[in-house]
Amino acid sequence: MTITFLSDFGLQDDFVGTCHGVIKRIAPDADVIDITHGIERYQVLQGALVLANTLPYMPEGVHLAVVDPGVGTARRALALRSGDGRLYVGPDNGLLVPAAERFGGVSAAWELENTAYRLQPVSRTFHGRDLFAPAAAHLAAGVDPAELGPEIAPAALVRLDVPVAVVEAGSVIAHVLIVDRFGNVQLNLTTADLSAVGVEPGTRVEIEVGLQRFYACAASTFADVRIGDVVLYEDAYGNVALAINGGSAAEMLAARPGDTLAVSVRAGA
Amino acid sequence: MTITFLSDFGLQDDFVGTCHGVIKRIAPDADVIDITHGIERYQVLQGALVLANTLPYMPEGVHLAVVDPGVGTARRALALRSGDGRLYVGPDNGLLVPAAERFGGVSAAWELENTAYRLQPVSRTFHGRDLFAPAAAHLAAGVDPAELGPEIAPAALVRLDVPVAVVEAGSVIAHVLIVDRFGNVQLNLTTADLSAVGVEPGTRVEIEVGLQRFYACAASTFADVRIGDVVLYEDAYGNVALAINGGSAAEMLAARPGDTLAVSVRAGA
Amino acid sequence: MTITFLSDFGLQDDFVGTCHGVIKRIAPDADVIDITHGIERYQVLQGALVLANTLPYMPEGVHLAVVDPGVGTARRALALRSGDGRLYVGPDNGLLVPAAERFGGVSAAWELENTAYRLQPVSRTFHGRDLFAPAAAHLAAGVDPAELGPEIAPAALVRLDVPVAVVEAGSVIAHVLIVDRFGNVQLNLTTADLSAVGVEPGTRVEIEVGLQRFYACAASTFADVRIGDVVLYEDAYGNVALAINGGSAAEMLAARPGDTLAVSVRAGA
Repeated sequence: MTITFLSDFGLQDDFVGTCHGVIKRIAPDADVIDITHGIERYQVLQGALVLANTLPYMPEGVHLAVVDPGVGTARRALALRSGDGRLYVGPDNGLLVPAAERFGGVSAAWELENTAYRLQPVSRTFHGRDLFAPAAAHLAAGVDPAELGPEIAPAALVRLDVPVAVVEAGSVIAHVLIVDRFGNVQLNLTTADLSAVGVEPGTRVEIEVGLQRFYACAASTFADVRIGDVVLYEDAYGNVALAINGGSAAEMLAARPGDTLAVSVRAGA
Repeated sequence: MTITFLSDFGLQDDFVGTCHGVIKRIAPDADVIDITHGIERYQVLQGALVLANTLPYMPEGVHLAVVDPGVGTARRALALRSGDGRLYVGPDNGLLVPAAERFGGVSAAWELENTAYRLQPVSRTFHGRDLFAPAAAHLAAGVDPAELGPEIAPAALVRLDVPVAVVEAGSVIAHVLIVDRFGNVQLNLTTADLSAVGVEPGTRVEIEVGLQRFYACAASTFADVRIGDVVLYEDAYGNVALAINGGSAAEMLAARPGDTLAVSVRAGA
Repeated sequence: MTITFLSDFGLQDDFVGTCHGVIKRIAPDADVIDITHGIERYQVLQGALVLANTLPYMPEGVHLAVVDPGVGTARRALALRSGDGRLYVGPDNGLLVPAAERFGGVSAAWELENTAYRLQPVSRTFHGRDLFAPAAAHLAAGVDPAELGPEIAPAALVRLDVPVAVVEAGSVIAHVLIVDRFGNVQLNLTTADLSAVGVEPGTRVEIEVGLQRFYACAASTFADVRIGDVVLYEDAYGNVALAINGGSAAEMLAARPGDTLAVSVRAGA
């Protein structure tokens, strides 16, 4: 069975490799796919959105995710099942819920309390290794999730506040969700939000971030504009994103996850 | 069957992991080897050279490569076969050709037009996920490449201008191809080019980059010179490279791929 | 059989991917786990400590490690066996010994001299590819280590000077071993060393690094102190480490591997 693995561990240290070792000791036949370990440190919302965006492209199986600023505190450790049967393992901080909601919602949840499915002793700082990776591996090896600990009501799970875009007359207030390696800036916007304020491919718009203003062009993809032009387009995950053809929009806009950004139809355009 | 995978996607985002997921959904038994995803953004020539350098060390199979500044434009998407039977998948921008030429040349080529072997819909910006990874996975699962789309004449493929070293009386004008993590600077030179101007292990040479000049010593390996000395040696892929024993030649020379560099036999040496 | 792989190769270049290719050509059924390739360039001690820390979490098998500032010199290439039967492959510079000592000590050692188990020709600069990865793959495929070359007395192996903490009246002089992505600073200290000078969870201590002094609190984990507080705790590998809850201790202390650091019980605390 496949285990997918997403975290904010980075690849410089041994954290990811050590979790792979733990998994393979418990479930030698599991096939582990690293979705990414480049989530920014402790950015639970970014982790949750990337997990939800990418799971449709992953084989069904056990989905392990660890972005866990609360490690060592009283936050619960979870296994979830979504309506379609996929299993999820991670901290109870909202990380897993948006992904499960894409696959039928959380149909059942369990707290990882059974010490038989942990490493012993459990450290206070590396639950990825001692708690979450072992649970995911046991599930992949066929253990029933109800064996891992007591059931929890799905309604009792921690949920994230996902920022919502505000559509006003002639403008949209959006938020930066994710900035990628290429400097593309993913926003919490869909093309439907843009249509609602009259922005279609070809429309010129004004972007306001902090004290700066830029002109951009709505287009189907960044290859539709000239090198150096700012473009607002639907990215590969169905979100609206900002890019510069041949450049880095994130650098030019100094945009970081969480930033607020106004998109308005350009006067006279 | 093995799929090797090379790209400029980096490992910070989910691009590589998502392609792995797509591959495993189509070809669960394929074994994926990541050659590297650290090719500099959009540096097709660097990608082509690293692919050609490394394939002799890879199991035969399907060789997926994505360095694709033209994604979203009219550039074609390809599958190739080389004389020895290896298969290649990637954009028609020259990326795949130097590798295929090491294995008997391009014996057949097909355009990836059959929508049955793509994800649907195909995004405008992530053909790695929607077009190339699925094609590679279907080939690894045994699909005949002729199923993927119409055949193209190998002569019609885009080819790269690989810079050629100029050997003159007493000096060689070379170009920087690749700079690695250790600061070693790979040149488009062979030891035969150096011999042609009288440079053998032990010869002292002058290096000119931009307005700067350095002395270096030709040697069999950087361990043959003192710590801190600049050395010109044959690297592990058969190219001549510049290194500093215990240091970074790239930093000292401020050398980047594409830079021109003159190597001349030192007067009086 | 499992091959674990640790190096200072980084993931930007093709070094790691090329070694994977070499392994798979020789031992197609081997399962390779990358422990980490983020060891700092040529930091043999860091590599040795990370290998020793992580192997208890890895499946038994062949443990390949390459941090090799002496590549191209006369340093020997080794295969080792530890008391419990694990096998190790790497350079004779001390890298493998601390890990083997956790598993019963070095019970046998061989020099990699048999050219039948190398790639040909062996380059002067990439023994990971030409010497170590092939040896590990042949061992994983079932070759007897005695086939790889002549036996060496374990006592003749190069060993590292692991810095030892000095416990004095009321203070401990420790060294920075490893700094991780989260800015946590691992020291060559155990909680027993701290107890010896009267430091228990809850004790306030003074930390001296270079010319700077900081107050810190000994605690069970960083979640036990307030955001922004410096904490001295037992990390997930049983070493004492310094952290800042929600911040980077390494940045604040400008601490790097090898730095000396004094921990003393705060007067009047």
